[in-house]
Amino acid sequence: MIAEKDRIILGIDPGTNVMGFGVIRIVGAKIEMMDMGILDLRKEGDTYLKLKKIYDFVILLIEKFLPDEFAIEAQFFGKNVQSMLKLGRSQGVAIAAALQRDLPIAEYAPLKIKMSITGNGAASKEQVAKMLVQYLKISEEKLLPQLDATDALAVALCHYFQSKSLTSGKKFSSWKDFAAKNENRVRGSRK
Amino acid sequence: MIAEKDRIILGIDPGTNVMGFGVIRIVGAKIEMMDMGILDLRKEGDTYLKLKKIYDFVILLIEKFLPDEFAIEAQFFGKNVQSMLKLGRSQGVAIAAALQRDLPIAEYAPLKIKMSITGNGAASKEQVAKMLVQYLKISEEKLLPQLDATDALAVALCHYFQSKSLTSGKKFSSWKDFAAKNENRVRGSRK
Repeated sequence: MIAEKDRIILGIDPGTNVMGFGVIRIVGAKIEMMDMGILDLRKEGDTYLKLKKIYDFVILLIEKFLPDEFAIEAQFFGKNVQSMLKLGRSQGVAIAAALQRDLPIAEYAPLKIKMSITGNGAASKEQVAKMLVQYLKISEEKLLPQLDATDALAVALCHYFQSKSLTSGKKFSSWKDFAAKNENRVRGSRK
Repeated sequence: MIAEKDRIILGIDPGTNVMGFGVIRIVGAKIEMMDMGILDLRKEGDTYLKLKKIYDFVILLIEKFLPDEFAIEAQFFGKNVQSMLKLGRSQGVAIAAALQRDLPIAEYAPLKIKMSITGNGAASKEQVAKMLVQYLKISEEKLLPQLDATDALAVALCHYFQSKSLTSGKKFSSWKDFAAKNENRVRGSRK
C-alpha cells in the first residue's frame, strides 16, 4: 500500500481592509487545520503599501506552510465599479504571489463556499464556523473569535471537497455527503 | 558639476486582452524612447495563465531595462463591476511585479495622461501619438503601427512631466510649457 501524500491547501480571503487566511492539511482521510488568521490593513493608508503587504504576506505564508494548492474566495458582484477595481487589485497581488511560487490556483464564490461547507448557500458566518469546528475538530473557543478568518479557512476546505469530488477516492464531497455519513454529528445547523 | 543620473521609466497600460508597455530614458534634458510594444493576451483562454503572463512579462521588462520608476495607466471607471474586477486583477499583478522589485509606483488616469501629453484631456490616440513623436523624436512610421502601446509610452512620459513639476530643474512640465517653448514645433494638434 502506498501512503497517501499529505496535501496542504492555503485559503485566502482578500479584502481591501482585512485579508483572512486559513491553512489545512489532509493526511489520508484526516483534515487538520494548520493555522488561521488575518492581516489587518486598516491602518495602512497608502494603496501600494497595502498591496505590498498583501503580496509579502502571501509569500510568507507560502514559504512557511509550503502549500500544494492555493484557493481564493472571489466575489464577483459588488456595490460599485471602484470598490470592485480595488478588490480586483487585492486579489491580483495575492494571485501573483501564488503564481510566483507556481501554485495551482482555484477560486470560489462565497455562495459556492457556503453551499459546500454547510449545504446552504445563504448560511451565516456562524453556521459556517460551526461546520468548520466539526470538520476540522477545532474548538469553538478557538474559532469563534476569528470570524474574519473563517471564510479563508472555508475556501481551503471547499477546495478540498471540490477537488475530491473530481478524483476517485471520495470519502464525502459535500456537506450532504458528510451529513449522510455522520448523522450523529450533525444537528440543527442546516435550514 | 555633477552629471545628472539617467532616469528610466517603465510605463504599463494593463488590459484584459492586450498589455502595452513603453520605456523611456531621461538623460539630462533629453528624453529617449528605449522600447515599446505589447503583450497579446487574446489567445490565452485561462484567466490565471493570463495573469501569470502579465506578471512574468513585467518582471522580464524590469530585468531587461532596470527602470527606476514604474507608471501605470489606471482607469477608474468602467462599464460594469465584472470588467472592473478583471481589470483590477490585471493591474494588481502588474503592480505586484513592480513591488516585488521595489520600484516606486505612480498611476495616472487616461484623462490626466492625455492632458499632460497633448494639453487636451479628450485627445485621440492619434493626437497623443503625434505628440510622442515630437517629444521622443521617433518616426511616425515606427510609432503609428503600434497604437496599442502608445498609452503605455504616454503614461511613462506623463510620469516624467509630473515628477519634473514637483522638483526644481524644470524644463517644461506639461504640453502647455512645451508648446510655449517650442512654438515652431507645435501645430494643429491642439483643439
